[in-house]
Amino acid sequence: MKSNAVFYHAGCPVCVDAEQSLAAALDPSRFNVEIVHFGDQPQRVAEADKLGVKSVPALVVDGQVFHINFGAALSDLR
Amino acid sequence: MKSNAVFYHAGCPVCVDAEQSLAAALDPSRFNVEIVHFGDQPQRVAEADKLGVKSVPALVVDGQVFHINFGAALSDLR
Repeated sequence: MKSNAVFYHAGCPVCVDAEQSLAAALDPSRFNVEIVHFGDQPQRVAEADKLGVKSVPALVVDGQVFHINFGAALSDLR
Repeated sequence: MKSNAVFYHAGCPVCVDAEQSLAAALDPSRFNVEIVHFGDQPQRVAEADKLGVKSVPALVVDGQVFHINFGAALSDLR
């Protein structure tokens, strides 16, 4: 069974770099990678907050939150 | 040709989580992933510094530095 990975971002340059180089680098045979852009799906900010996401870009792999560099604070996206 | 990814860490709990969940998640058909533990290879701190690594754990993919969460500052490892 594949693991789920969700990459949350807000379209910032730091986010786009991380999406292209890191989220896209995950092994597709082991991970279902979902990309969530808060500009398109603002209602999912609350979900990310619950998972423990403090800033974007962030990658959540099986419930573990990895904050990657720093683009913007989640609190600034509400 | 495969891309090179280097995961720099210092054995901290935050580092180990990132190694197991993120460095290990990269697609092995596209990336040569090298794990560098500064405890074992302290001489490579200077190399990481030159690449722009400010803290560990960090993953460098094709020269792009991604700081993942925060375990320790590179300056504390010298």
